[in-house]
Amino acid sequence: MAIKDLFKSKLKVVNIGLASFTESLERSGAQSVQVDWRPPVKADAGALAAVEAAAADIEKANAKAVKLILTGKPALVGMGVALDTIPGMTHDLILHAGPPVTWERMCGPMRGGVIGALLYEGRAKTPEEAEKLAASGKIRFSPCHEHGAVGPMAGIVSPSMPVFIVKNEEHGNLAYATMNEGLGKVLRYGAFGPEITKRLKWMADELYPTLAAAIAKLGRIDLKSMIAQALHMGDEVHNRNRAATSLLFRALAPAIVRTCPDSERAAKVLEFIHGNDHFFLNLSMAASKATLDAARGVAGSSLVVVMARNGTDFGVQLSGTGGEWFTGPAPVPDALYFPGFTKADANPDIGDSAITETNGLGGFSIAAAPAIVQFVGGQAPDALRYTKQMYEITAAENGAYQIPSLNFRGAPTGIDVRKVVAKGIFPLIDTGVAHKEPGVGQVGAGILSAPAEPFVKALSGLAGSLSAKPKKQKKTLSV
Amino acid sequence: MAIKDLFKSKLKVVNIGLASFTESLERSGAQSVQVDWRPPVKADAGALAAVEAAAADIEKANAKAVKLILTGKPALVGMGVALDTIPGMTHDLILHAGPPVTWERMCGPMRGGVIGALLYEGRAKTPEEAEKLAASGKIRFSPCHEHGAVGPMAGIVSPSMPVFIVKNEEHGNLAYATMNEGLGKVLRYGAFGPEITKRLKWMADELYPTLAAAIAKLGRIDLKSMIAQALHMGDEVHNRNRAATSLLFRALAPAIVRTCPDSERAAKVLEFIHGNDHFFLNLSMAASKATLDAARGVAGSSLVVVMARNGTDFGVQLSGTGGEWFTGPAPVPDALYFPGFTKADANPDIGDSAITETNGLGGFSIAAAPAIVQFVGGQAPDALRYTKQMYEITAAENGAYQIPSLNFRGAPTGIDVRKVVAKGIFPLIDTGVAHKEPGVGQVGAGILSAPAEPFVKALSGLAGSLSAKPKKQKKTLSV
Repeated sequence: MAIKDLFKSKLKVVNIGLASFTESLERSGAQSVQVDWRPPVKADAGALAAVEAAAADIEKANAKAVKLILTGKPALVGMGVALDTIPGMTHDLILHAGPPVTWERMCGPMRGGVIGALLYEGRAKTPEEAEKLAASGKIRFSPCHEHGAVGPMAGIVSPSMPVFIVKNEEHGNLAYATMNEGLGKVLRYGAFGPEITKRLKWMADELYPTLAAAIAKLGRIDLKSMIAQALHMGDEVHNRNRAATSLLFRALAPAIVRTCPDSERAAKVLEFIHGNDHFFLNLSMAASKATLDAARGVAGSSLVVVMARNGTDFGVQLSGTGGEWFTGPAPVPDALYFPGFTKADANPDIGDSAITETNGLGGFSIAAAPAIVQFVGGQAPDALRYTKQMYEITAAENGAYQIPSLNFRGAPTGIDVRKVVAKGIFPLIDTGVAHKEPGVGQVGAGILSAPAEPFVKALSGLAGSLSAKPKKQKKTLSV
Repeated sequence: MAIKDLFKSKLKVVNIGLASFTESLERSGAQSVQVDWRPPVKADAGALAAVEAAAADIEKANAKAVKLILTGKPALVGMGVALDTIPGMTHDLILHAGPPVTWERMCGPMRGGVIGALLYEGRAKTPEEAEKLAASGKIRFSPCHEHGAVGPMAGIVSPSMPVFIVKNEEHGNLAYATMNEGLGKVLRYGAFGPEITKRLKWMADELYPTLAAAIAKLGRIDLKSMIAQALHMGDEVHNRNRAATSLLFRALAPAIVRTCPDSERAAKVLEFIHGNDHFFLNLSMAASKATLDAARGVAGSSLVVVMARNGTDFGVQLSGTGGEWFTGPAPVPDALYFPGFTKADANPDIGDSAITETNGLGGFSIAAAPAIVQFVGGQAPDALRYTKQMYEITAAENGAYQIPSLNFRGAPTGIDVRKVVAKGIFPLIDTGVAHKEPGVGQVGAGILSAPAEPFVKALSGLAGSLSAKPKKQKKTLSV
């Protein structure tokens, strides 16, 4: 066929790889077939062989680990001040999102969050003073995840911040998260200054005692049931939390009215939550953390129990490899950017919120929340496709967390690092994007594919843990 | 093929008509093809010819009527007591659901509702006294719909009941509905007695002033936007109102706290709404009523502006035929019955709530609420199928009311009686089922196909209106 004939004829195209080409063709009316192909993931041959050889034991370990995940029962049971509540918290400690990172390697928004926290704590009077203090070595930094906590975006938790206490009522472990500040100029996007300090003070002085008293009156709030209902109501409880926030609001309001001595304060508290559809996010994260922490330490298990980003590195932890972090550079999201911003403004991926995906929610359950795909530039069928793909890399379906548009199929749960590496399918995370400079705030939102490196390393780590273990110990997995 | 071979071979079946046969076959693994066939609807040949001849004028009238529907802007603007608020309400009048019906022809649950209302009004001391009074001719009965009002199930509105006032802010007309009482033994299912009277008194004495003050403080609550959001959150705002109730709760709570002088009363009011996921239903109905009433009286229009059932008759009104009711016997729903009940216990279809379907919501938007199909015994794909079918008999899609699972397609809106009769596709209504005896309550829920007779009669009525009009008057339609 001559080239010029090509322009006259109806095209029939076989496209390999990037689906967006097929989509463009379909939009222009051409017939096309999409072949789902990815470049093979380069993994260590020895590690692959070791994991392959131990397949039966790994399966047994994973069955145990995933059962621990699926039986988790997270409930909000109280609140407290971080210093008195979070294990290992001290006056000089600041917790942050993602794997460990030094002040020197911290990205802009996380540095901004640290500066904001030091101003809020009264440890510095100016941002310059705070920066100096942060760099001085007098302040220690540690991942939230190493203290049973999680934080969205920069994920900063400083000693005097109030936190929610979430209990895994089935397995007894606790998890912690701060209260969500809302949108706009907020600490989690690296904003600092009088406006941020003032809001954080109000949250500590009025919001915290009001909520704490209401939660105490209620005794507990069943987060598992609330998340399950929210999935039936268009949330995936990562980037969309409108339903879950509404259900939480309904549960709290009568108790707030009964326990708050000042009706104007009660009204302001209700307005604050009503004004922030993301208020539930931190609870969804803490619920996921409480759920996954119970599945830690199952020797031989290849299931992922943490995915977290500090804005510099993307980190992964496995059930079978203890507290070890497997990291690689955090990617910059291909997002839908707000007017006036481009990818050049974006910070690499940041936040502990990928704990929701690790728990089968967020991007993994995005088919429950098609409105998000619309928000990040896709169409409703994309959401179905994303979730279906995640079944390829997970060990189970969570019957408690159902996806209506997939005829109530359970959320894909228990990421198996072996499947991720073997299939070259990486966890999909739907995420907000922070400006790379501190204090600018959110510049977009998008669906992000996790990077390969941490998973390849984690597979090697798992292989190492297998050879390090005596045979006798492995036998205990077959419970 | 010998019969006995049939039992050994894999079946390939072509099924004509009732889809449930195909579904059974598919469940047992047989291949089958479903042919969508219905018996032809018997309509008057003269009416069909007249309507066919006036097709161009009817199209113009429908374009006008549907524009009036789509541009409607229902908002909750206040509350009042029925006697002072509803046009034409008097001390001796009781409003009811559906088309007109005498005491003699009233079904059990509606009679129960009337007895309950007379006890509540203090017009009778015992149910026997109330029944006697109701039958005496001293109490007049009239359809809610003829007073700008709507009521779920029995739909009883008596003079001293408080009602919501919903305004169509685009076209200026008002609609009214009582507050939803909750589940269990309630007036709308025909229950009466001290428990019901006590709740109604509390609603009038405490719930009403509390809500009225909060609404007054807020000025207005945009119901169109709330319904639009709720459709993104798994409601179809007829049988599922959890999201809409949550959004209403969020909007009201801070204002309730600010305006209610008694915090325990405020807490009880919030608990009452929180405890009833159907609380929004009556507002969804009033919003639909306010929307559709604006489209009344477009001469020549074949669009349905009312579908309503009184438990005896199913009634329809068209935009082009004024206040005339076209009725036929109300069918008994093929529902999923609660344990202990069967179709033999069920009352024929009852309630004004089909006003939501008339407005493109409820069964017409059931694809937005797949959880309902699960509740009534189907599967999520059934919900998609039901909504897709409703596009066949409607004039437009409502861009404000989007269905996420259909890639945000607008709700099928503006039922065209010509399409209904020509295609033999009848409006799908998802409905609660009342016990046929007064006071027993709900016995099931189901998806119901409206009966043919009212639509066939309505088509004849429309034909009559066309011939009755001088040509000149018809010309005014082409606006």
